[in-house]
Amino acid sequence: MTSAHTAVRLQAVSAPDQPDVTPALEELYRGFEQELLVPLWTEIGDLMPAHPRSRAVPHLWRWAHLVGLAERAGELVPVGRGGERRAIALANPALGGRPFATPTLWAAIQYLMPGEDAPEHRHTQHAFRFVVEGSGVWTVVGGDAVPMNRGDFLPQAGWNWHAHHNATDEPMAWVDGLDIPFQYVTETQFFEFGRDELSAAERTTPERSRSERLWAHPGLRPVGVGEVRPGTPLLSYKWEHTDRALTDQLAVEREGFGGTVEPGHAAVRYTDPSTGGDVLPTIRAELHRVVRGVETAPVRETGSSVYQVFDGSGTVTVGDQTWSVSRGDLFVVPAWQAFSARSEAGDTDSDSGALDLFRFSDAPVFEALGLDRQETVR
Amino acid sequence: MTSAHTAVRLQAVSAPDQPDVTPALEELYRGFEQELLVPLWTEIGDLMPAHPRSRAVPHLWRWAHLVGLAERAGELVPVGRGGERRAIALANPALGGRPFATPTLWAAIQYLMPGEDAPEHRHTQHAFRFVVEGSGVWTVVGGDAVPMNRGDFLPQAGWNWHAHHNATDEPMAWVDGLDIPFQYVTETQFFEFGRDELSAAERTTPERSRSERLWAHPGLRPVGVGEVRPGTPLLSYKWEHTDRALTDQLAVEREGFGGTVEPGHAAVRYTDPSTGGDVLPTIRAELHRVVRGVETAPVRETGSSVYQVFDGSGTVTVGDQTWSVSRGDLFVVPAWQAFSARSEAGDTDSDSGALDLFRFSDAPVFEALGLDRQETVR
Amino acid sequence: MTSAHTAVRLQAVSAPDQPDVTPALEELYRGFEQELLVPLWTEIGDLMPAHPRSRAVPHLWRWAHLVGLAERAGELVPVGRGGERRAIALANPALGGRPFATPTLWAAIQYLMPGEDAPEHRHTQHAFRFVVEGSGVWTVVGGDAVPMNRGDFLPQAGWNWHAHHNATDEPMAWVDGLDIPFQYVTETQFFEFGRDELSAAERTTPERSRSERLWAHPGLRPVGVGEVRPGTPLLSYKWEHTDRALTDQLAVEREGFGGTVEPGHAAVRYTDPSTGGDVLPTIRAELHRVVRGVETAPVRETGSSVYQVFDGSGTVTVGDQTWSVSRGDLFVVPAWQAFSARSEAGDTDSDSGALDLFRFSDAPVFEALGLDRQETVR
Amino acid sequence: MTSAHTAVRLQAVSAPDQPDVTPALEELYRGFEQELLVPLWTEIGDLMPAHPRSRAVPHLWRWAHLVGLAERAGELVPVGRGGERRAIALANPALGGRPFATPTLWAAIQYLMPGEDAPEHRHTQHAFRFVVEGSGVWTVVGGDAVPMNRGDFLPQAGWNWHAHHNATDEPMAWVDGLDIPFQYVTETQFFEFGRDELSAAERTTPERSRSERLWAHPGLRPVGVGEVRPGTPLLSYKWEHTDRALTDQLAVEREGFGGTVEPGHAAVRYTDPSTGGDVLPTIRAELHRVVRGVETAPVRETGSSVYQVFDGSGTVTVGDQTWSVSRGDLFVVPAWQAFSARSEAGDTDSDSGALDLFRFSDAPVFEALGLDRQETVR
Repeated sequence: MTSAHTAVRLQAVSAPDQPDVTPALEELYRGFEQELLVPLWTEIGDLMPAHPRSRAVPHLWRWAHLVGLAERAGELVPVGRGGERRAIALANPALGGRPFATPTLWAAIQYLMPGEDAPEHRHTQHAFRFVVEGSGVWTVVGGDAVPMNRGDFLPQAGWNWHAHHNATDEPMAWVDGLDIPFQYVTETQFFEFGRDELSAAERTTPERSRSERLWAHPGLRPVGVGEVRPGTPLLSYKWEHTDRALTDQLAVEREGFGGTVEPGHAAVRYTDPSTGGDVLPTIRAELHRVVRGVETAPVRETGSSVYQVFDGSGTVTVGDQTWSVSRGDLFVVPAWQAFSARSEAGDTDSDSGALDLFRFSDAPVFEALGLDRQETVR
Repeated sequence: MTSAHTAVRLQAVSAPDQPDVTPALEELYRGFEQELLVPLWTEIGDLMPAHPRSRAVPHLWRWAHLVGLAERAGELVPVGRGGERRAIALANPALGGRPFATPTLWAAIQYLMPGEDAPEHRHTQHAFRFVVEGSGVWTVVGGDAVPMNRGDFLPQAGWNWHAHHNATDEPMAWVDGLDIPFQYVTETQFFEFGRDELSAAERTTPERSRSERLWAHPGLRPVGVGEVRPGTPLLSYKWEHTDRALTDQLAVEREGFGGTVEPGHAAVRYTDPSTGGDVLPTIRAELHRVVRGVETAPVRETGSSVYQVFDGSGTVTVGDQTWSVSRGDLFVVPAWQAFSARSEAGDTDSDSGALDLFRFSDAPVFEALGLDRQETVR
Repeated sequence: MTSAHTAVRLQAVSAPDQPDVTPALEELYRGFEQELLVPLWTEIGDLMPAHPRSRAVPHLWRWAHLVGLAERAGELVPVGRGGERRAIALANPALGGRPFATPTLWAAIQYLMPGEDAPEHRHTQHAFRFVVEGSGVWTVVGGDAVPMNRGDFLPQAGWNWHAHHNATDEPMAWVDGLDIPFQYVTETQFFEFGRDELSAAERTTPERSRSERLWAHPGLRPVGVGEVRPGTPLLSYKWEHTDRALTDQLAVEREGFGGTVEPGHAAVRYTDPSTGGDVLPTIRAELHRVVRGVETAPVRETGSSVYQVFDGSGTVTVGDQTWSVSRGDLFVVPAWQAFSARSEAGDTDSDSGALDLFRFSDAPVFEALGLDRQETVR
Repeated sequence: MTSAHTAVRLQAVSAPDQPDVTPALEELYRGFEQELLVPLWTEIGDLMPAHPRSRAVPHLWRWAHLVGLAERAGELVPVGRGGERRAIALANPALGGRPFATPTLWAAIQYLMPGEDAPEHRHTQHAFRFVVEGSGVWTVVGGDAVPMNRGDFLPQAGWNWHAHHNATDEPMAWVDGLDIPFQYVTETQFFEFGRDELSAAERTTPERSRSERLWAHPGLRPVGVGEVRPGTPLLSYKWEHTDRALTDQLAVEREGFGGTVEPGHAAVRYTDPSTGGDVLPTIRAELHRVVRGVETAPVRETGSSVYQVFDGSGTVTVGDQTWSVSRGDLFVVPAWQAFSARSEAGDTDSDSGALDLFRFSDAPVFEALGLDRQETVR
């Protein structure tokens, strides 16, 4: 963020694995400072821990509070060129006050007032929208107007032109997820402004986008559509399909044929239909359903996740934190911290009242580089 | 097929690019024969042509004739261990009387009488079923009973146990496609008999197979299902999805946004949802819809195809052959012979009465090896 | 090869797994013949065997006989446009007198007289040269003159222009390997004539080709050379490197650290340095060294191989055939027939007098399609 | 590094693209702070720039100064368990005094006194050694002792056990490169201590490691060595091969056949012989040779690089910085800053006195994720 030069500061300390503190050592350290050098032996504990020790901490944001502040921002903060979006990001309390939910992931509530447009732009950061409630906004990607309704997941790979318009007389809030922090720390961001106004053709409000009509047919791809660029060509994963997939998965398991993650815990991953792989090159997204009375096995992984409660209520445990959660609440799971979820008590043999959790993570980055690890914690 | 040794026979001929026919040359050729050698210079024209010259020829089989003979076989030929299936294969007239539709592809009509079972086996040959009419049979793959109805495409990768049962009091016919000739010429076939009887649990008649409940959700994959073996985990592509995809594709084109192969010619490819690639490692399968009044551009490709008319009627041209075709008719397109299809005249702006063509080919073999070429013939 | 139509001929036979031979069945079979149909139940034993049963048979060709006939051809058969090459191919005795060493592989002795040129052409068939003795010819690939000396392996991927020139006053013989039969049965061959005469610049006789100077450095690739087309950019694998690799491999094993295929049996695979994979998309090539007194474990695989004895002598067993072999002898291993080699008795702790076997096979085809299997036969 | 929670601090500012500063806005911002939220509209300029604006700055470290301090550390700082290595890292002056040469790359001088051992450990961070001068140390990787001499490049993929021993009576310095900062910011680090003492067998001093004897043969791989884990199996790229490759490449260019990056500028990339790809999953390494009198075209790229002058002298320009450099000097090129090098004036037609630059970068990370861009700056 800053390009101001910061001096190297080394402090010789007396410790078993450190060299003896002598005037000669102090002089050596002054020499290091002078030449902008830092020895490994003072830093190794922080840099090379036995396992990931995330700088981030588990944290929970209540949806009601977010919505209240977003509504107020709707009154006070215009949407337009420059600020670009009325998006308010989660700031992990251990990441220096920066708008980073985890060291790699951005999560924000975005809010659009009746009749408003958010202007067109594009960027290398990969993005998605997830709708926990409301409707009435269309995301226009490459000129294709994509409706947004409760439960819909709208991915949008980097460098696609996009805008939003609210075609109704109600405001709408949703969640944006991006890899902004990852691209920030690795310094790969490009950004361009698009047109200030959408055309009339783009301000249409179809029930299904063109991308869905071409790509949302199970196991079928259009023959005439050529090479697809990185990132999914399908711009919306409608809730009716996700819900049905989870219901089917639990039914197959109840018949004794598996198919779930573990008993009473179904999950689907949003995938690029042209590759079967993750929906975005740097972001994985999933919907997990935990039926009543079930607690998932605690698992820890490299990489971090952000969860939003889509439906139901229950208790989630992240590392040594436990919270009761309900619809809309958001929380983060830092790297290598164990996570488990417990649904409300109830009828295990029914999907009714299940805890539905939307999740996104940075797993594709680590899998692409062979740096992923996962373990179930007993 | 035979292991009888065939002598090498060489004939010295007088031709511009051949060596002079002399007693010495004749003696040399007798030496070649003796040592089981064949010179390139007498064979190069056949072995290394300027472009593929298929040994196969275009040919058409009428569905009505096939069904008539299959019905008669239903009366005369039992289904059981040994013969394994009441399948009757297309024999390309230029391939030596062998049951090869093309040099690499097998296409057959299979027929099952009321109450009959076809016994379980497995083989390395990749296979599918396509249903042009009728219903009432279930294909049981790995214990999962998959219904078969008009328009359904049921792929089944090599080495999966499979059987069929007819649960109704009507006979049923359908088309089988396999890579039997390809695996025959490359000699990679393994085969095993399974159980002689299906269990009661496998003789169920569900409307959707378990594979569909886990995998037939657009862009969604089950998180808990591990590594998927080569070949699609989705065992049926129901007609309702295929039909809707084609209808949507034509609608998007009519709105001016492309998405089809060419104007009035929509096509979808059946794909493995875990990879986005072809449904089987050696077989590509597609459904093409040509709306009334449209003629597709003639295209020739390496590799061969078998087509079946699923609906509508029209005229197809393969190389220098042209036929009028209607529901159920099957025909082959040999390598590098141009193919085009023309639908009946009619209202181009409607899907009604369109010519629907099911197609399968060996294209994945050539793409995997970098040997594919395609060109539109002007 | 032929496009003459061959009638389907079906014979009803009385056998346990065949339908009862009745007049009605005979009539049905006449109906099949009429409609160009063949039932599965009469063909399944041949088409779907329990394991590959190759149409090819094991066979051995003696180098001395080949060279004698090639020399005679040198006197009688000119090299020029039309015949293209003075190449004489091995014809497996069970493959109908055709110039196919196995169902997929072509192996030939090629012979060039002093001062002769073989004219330029290109084809989709992938090819290589292997030199068991002699020198003096250069293969000119894309204008790059590549020398040929004993032990050198010169691969050349499909569709590269190539020619040969003999710059000495001695004739030279070598072995050509191609995938001609595979491309013949799958019908993917394209061929073009090039220039009739090489330029003076191409008739140079460098000790190292440009391709070697750019690519024959271990683990190093030129940064400025762009995307490499399928098939290796390295046009010669010189014997000195191959020999050293085998010597080193055996030394590492003798020190107790493995690295060989099995004790006393070293092997290296020729690879594309830009991918680490096989040197050609359809052909695998290897050099095996079996030290004195060692017998390799019998192994059978899908796919077929051709071997040439490069050095030493010993005994080889293919299926139920066993031959004593020495320098230059060629033999084929059909699909799924067990192969093992035994070197002459002698000092196991030395490389001296080892049996060196050059091998090529069609394994990449089957690996690309997931059809490869291998097993050691006890 | 810290897990202390840092409050969010938001300051409403009066600016054209910011909302009007009013008491209501101030109250909204206090609400954001309370809920740990940060709006996009105050951060977008920093987070989403038009192109990468690296936090790092160009900087040069003089080898003589590094060596002087390393020698002094050799006297004062013991090598042993805990500190693990006598490694002194470059700290980019704009990265907060942390031992990060760039936001993703670690570069250090390591120093080992006569007879010293650096104890065994392993970590997920990918690493290499590069030797600009001296010899006498062996890096022991998985029990294989790898010699280190001037010009050698020794990569070592993550999670391999490794140690060093100095077998001579001279100290030795070399450069270590790792992806420590990248794994630090993405939080994927695992680390384990190994044995405190090397065995006698590991304290050997062979001229070639076993890895080189198995893998350093151009285009040849051992058949008997199974699946290779991510990262190259070849543990040393000796200078003699690198030097010869560069010399050959320039010779081919001088003959008029290209092969270099640009005239007078040769470069080779160190690759994994089992894949042809980068030598390590997160690190690219290359050696560039710029002949006398040549200036390379300025290029800027996503991702950052560290260079060390291996030989010769000249002038390098990074962004708006220009330095004269000579043997051993190290400098960094931040993301999207243009880099070019100019060799001393002299005979362009000879390699003698060329400027040899060793380079490593994080390019494989961005290529794996589709985030790489590059352009030549006119």
